[in-house]
Amino acid sequence: MSTEPSTPGQIPQRLVRIRQLMREEGIHALLVPSADPHLSEYLPGYWQGRQWLSGFHGSVGTLIVTLDFAGVWADSRYWEQATKELEGSGIELVKLVPGQPGPLDWLGEQTPEGGVVAVDGAVMAVASARTLSSKLESRGARLRTDIDLLHKVWTDRPALPNQPVYAHLPPQATVSRVEKLAKLRESLKERGADWHFIATLDDIAWLFNLRGADVSFNPVFVSFALIGQQQATLFVALDKVDAALRATLEQDGVTLRDYSEAVVALREVPSGASLQIDPARVTVGLLGNLDNGVKLVEGLNPTTLAKSRKTPADAEHIRQAMEQDGAALCEFFAWLESAWGRERITELTIDEHLTAARMRRPDFVSLSFNTIAAFNANGAMPHYHATEEAHAVIEGDGLLLIDSGGQYLGGTTDITRMVPVGTPTPEQKRDCTRVLKGVIALSRAKFPRGILSPLLDAIARAPIWAEQVDYGHGTGHGVGYFLNVHEGPQVIAYQAAAAPQTAMQPGMITSIEPGTYRPGRWGVRIENLVLNREAGSSEFGEFLSFETLTLCPIDTRCLEPSLLTQDEKDWFNAYHAEVQRRLSPLLEGDALQWLNMRTATI
Amino acid sequence: MSTEPSTPGQIPQRLVRIRQLMREEGIHALLVPSADPHLSEYLPGYWQGRQWLSGFHGSVGTLIVTLDFAGVWADSRYWEQATKELEGSGIELVKLVPGQPGPLDWLGEQTPEGGVVAVDGAVMAVASARTLSSKLESRGARLRTDIDLLHKVWTDRPALPNQPVYAHLPPQATVSRVEKLAKLRESLKERGADWHFIATLDDIAWLFNLRGADVSFNPVFVSFALIGQQQATLFVALDKVDAALRATLEQDGVTLRDYSEAVVALREVPSGASLQIDPARVTVGLLGNLDNGVKLVEGLNPTTLAKSRKTPADAEHIRQAMEQDGAALCEFFAWLESAWGRERITELTIDEHLTAARMRRPDFVSLSFNTIAAFNANGAMPHYHATEEAHAVIEGDGLLLIDSGGQYLGGTTDITRMVPVGTPTPEQKRDCTRVLKGVIALSRAKFPRGILSPLLDAIARAPIWAEQVDYGHGTGHGVGYFLNVHEGPQVIAYQAAAAPQTAMQPGMITSIEPGTYRPGRWGVRIENLVLNREAGSSEFGEFLSFETLTLCPIDTRCLEPSLLTQDEKDWFNAYHAEVQRRLSPLLEGDALQWLNMRTATI
Repeated sequence: MSTEPSTPGQIPQRLVRIRQLMREEGIHALLVPSADPHLSEYLPGYWQGRQWLSGFHGSVGTLIVTLDFAGVWADSRYWEQATKELEGSGIELVKLVPGQPGPLDWLGEQTPEGGVVAVDGAVMAVASARTLSSKLESRGARLRTDIDLLHKVWTDRPALPNQPVYAHLPPQATVSRVEKLAKLRESLKERGADWHFIATLDDIAWLFNLRGADVSFNPVFVSFALIGQQQATLFVALDKVDAALRATLEQDGVTLRDYSEAVVALREVPSGASLQIDPARVTVGLLGNLDNGVKLVEGLNPTTLAKSRKTPADAEHIRQAMEQDGAALCEFFAWLESAWGRERITELTIDEHLTAARMRRPDFVSLSFNTIAAFNANGAMPHYHATEEAHAVIEGDGLLLIDSGGQYLGGTTDITRMVPVGTPTPEQKRDCTRVLKGVIALSRAKFPRGILSPLLDAIARAPIWAEQVDYGHGTGHGVGYFLNVHEGPQVIAYQAAAAPQTAMQPGMITSIEPGTYRPGRWGVRIENLVLNREAGSSEFGEFLSFETLTLCPIDTRCLEPSLLTQDEKDWFNAYHAEVQRRLSPLLEGDALQWLNMRTATI
Repeated sequence: MSTEPSTPGQIPQRLVRIRQLMREEGIHALLVPSADPHLSEYLPGYWQGRQWLSGFHGSVGTLIVTLDFAGVWADSRYWEQATKELEGSGIELVKLVPGQPGPLDWLGEQTPEGGVVAVDGAVMAVASARTLSSKLESRGARLRTDIDLLHKVWTDRPALPNQPVYAHLPPQATVSRVEKLAKLRESLKERGADWHFIATLDDIAWLFNLRGADVSFNPVFVSFALIGQQQATLFVALDKVDAALRATLEQDGVTLRDYSEAVVALREVPSGASLQIDPARVTVGLLGNLDNGVKLVEGLNPTTLAKSRKTPADAEHIRQAMEQDGAALCEFFAWLESAWGRERITELTIDEHLTAARMRRPDFVSLSFNTIAAFNANGAMPHYHATEEAHAVIEGDGLLLIDSGGQYLGGTTDITRMVPVGTPTPEQKRDCTRVLKGVIALSRAKFPRGILSPLLDAIARAPIWAEQVDYGHGTGHGVGYFLNVHEGPQVIAYQAAAAPQTAMQPGMITSIEPGTYRPGRWGVRIENLVLNREAGSSEFGEFLSFETLTLCPIDTRCLEPSLLTQDEKDWFNAYHAEVQRRLSPLLEGDALQWLNMRTATI
């Protein structure tokens, strides 16, 4: 679904055409973000305009074109790729560094007085548009969001995705859409909102117990929703929903309208009514259709918090999915160990065999993200992906990092394990052991219910910082229930803003994935998913602790056990005992033997 | 310097008079915060108007008077006191709970359309006035800050304090005022500011190397400062500065003007000039004197960050002050142990003897705050202060909490220790040991330079949370250099906003003081001050660690050593060895014997 790499020379031609249009419209700068009308992480090809116009194919980056300058702002993950892809295009790479001014700041500084900046309002969040507008206004410039210049020159623009929508059914769907809608309506009442507009695809999929396959890895479908106290309207290409499902939805009080009619429905919200929206999760283009008399009630979509709190019944399904996923990993690892020296193994064969093992498991639907199999130096790039053109053969000595996950009807998995290749060096083992100490420290923490999740990060990092090591990514992200592998509102990252909505609540699932990256040498990451569960209350309030959900051995050959305290060894051995107990009934032969061997105590 | 407790009947009469004035001026609500024109923690009597008008003498609280209601908003520390003091006054206690709406929210909700709320602009921060104004404007009401109703009825208002100003001299003043002014001017240039107005007393004292005694415990003097690229003007009552000091200041390019002329000087800032101010640290009343053409550059006062970063030479003086302070504590504790059973000891005698021991030490100036000596149940109130009327006799069994500190020419101290009385119970020992584990965990942490300090709190709390215990106050506050015992910008508290200015930098001094409070039973707190020092850099960046500055044994009779890990015991024993090594040269006789006994290893 990605746009194809451009051939040389196309980009300058495209820029000439877009600048011609800019001149005609009196536009000084065009902003093309990586975004779609749903502000999704993965974009359908239809919305990969930044890729098409710049030739830079990284998934995150912002293009700005003025009449005499063009630049792509990209973070350090993409500097190597962007440098290569932008060569000869006339577009500069502008290196984006956390805490330094970004592209919106640049526009705020560079736009001349009276200047006009254009962005397709269909893909810019209300909150971002407000930020940019205020930067421009303080210079006497202004923002136009009512024109899609790109569309006029993008002649071979891909079509919108059109995969069928299907129901997420019991037993895995543990709460009916009727009940979810009723609870949402209660929240809206409490907030004084008559209506609620949702643009985010995972919120919609969760609310209606529907799934799709319109974007990679996330089982969602392109849609909008408008909810009132009596009505619930789902805007989706009508041919994606079969008659039976449509009838069921209608029985449950859900009306279908075509995707394109969301605009019409927003225009129809009566003046004087109040509408709940999340300004960071709905675009200015859509909201511009509202009557001026509609009162906005701004805040996090109520479904975002609701879906983050998995029910006890959800948790039971997730535990089963984790067992199946762990069993698939054992089968894969058993194959891998038997294949060393017998077969040529590359980062790509790792992906193939691991995916095949998952596909054999019941209720498996798809991968939850692109498998990362990264050997030695490749592992030092946290977002590395092997390609046909560039991938490593696994041979010699070192560390293989495998970060992978699956979508199952009963849950979403995400796990990273380190695999020893030949003989890891003492320094590699120290890196792995230190990262494991971070995993253990946070996994066994208790903490007050409601604590803002970014504040927990230091618990995982303290044993890593102790040796003057750190890593640039967050320690943990929220994970959906047969939904997006990245979801909010909680996040365990000291770099993240500790906003009120990041508060830890029972039922949330979060990753714990500290790492260590040594550029040009190797990378280490160990990742489990954990469930927030109630740990009792005292005179000091309610406390939560984590249940480790992920079930797979952590290879002791990558570790230096003498660096672990007895407490840490106790946690590790108890974890391995649990993994052995839960996975052995699902395995036989080589895989069972591998499990028993690799869950040995230390 | 406090206003005297009111006699019964006075408060209703005062309210009658103030309401009469409110009617005459068309004011619907009068807001009286606990604040002065310098937004200080300790207020001179002249600014204790809230106390005078309400009869509630707690140091923090907000009074609102409308024509038919009067209420004092106070946090849980003051509920008991406020209930007693407000009885029969016609003023209600409104209990302030963190995270719940406060007095400004109340005004935003209760003020009628077209209503007028008055506050003396001289004591309201620009930032607070903006918040309140916007709450009122959204209801069609408005804020008046140009009238001081209280002054018109407060006939016996105390005078402004008038203690002499003196120079903080070398060797303890390690950077000259000329150099500090030059650096400040560089910061102003970088920020594009022509002028800088400072209202905060510790910033002014630090910048000019001057000290005073206008408020309790903080060695500061009532003043304002206006700094330009060529000029530096200090606004202070002129008779507080003797001729010699005045001449020295003039030589250093500092002009003196009377305190009252700050208003005039602000009016004189030319239109078109830019003025740096911190909207949270300057009042709307003062700023209202600016010409509309003055451009504000808003941000933290540069001196706030500069003074938080003690120089290596400062640190050397602080280490010496800590040795003297620790020696005073040893003498006090030696007396205390010899006095048990021989003398009647109360919380007040503790304070007397401890203060006397400090006063015998060289370069001692004053206490840095009111000593907290709190036995058993009194210790459960983190801000308890014994009084002549209400204090405990130290007898029987239990825990005595002593939180105290001194101002020395070469530094400010703040230390809390637990003293066993008779035989502490196993539960009391577990509480002390768990709190000590928190102290140790954070004291030996390393962390990236620049991390936002609130994010470190979880490291101290993790071992305490592990047993479902927590405490409502922060773990650490910044500490001045012969200045305020509470200073910013850093703060180690998960309840605090992780703002950019809280970033940890070398040279900052912070307290580490976790606790456990069991209402009606006992309280535990152990507190050391620590210095941020460079811990080397690696490929992952620069790291900092803490040097523990405070030197005083932690009584092992309050501890249950079996609950400590070997690592924790190692830290503890190394700390005791350092305390013994550094304090023994300053002690003799009983005090030396006490030190040697109480620094035994565990």
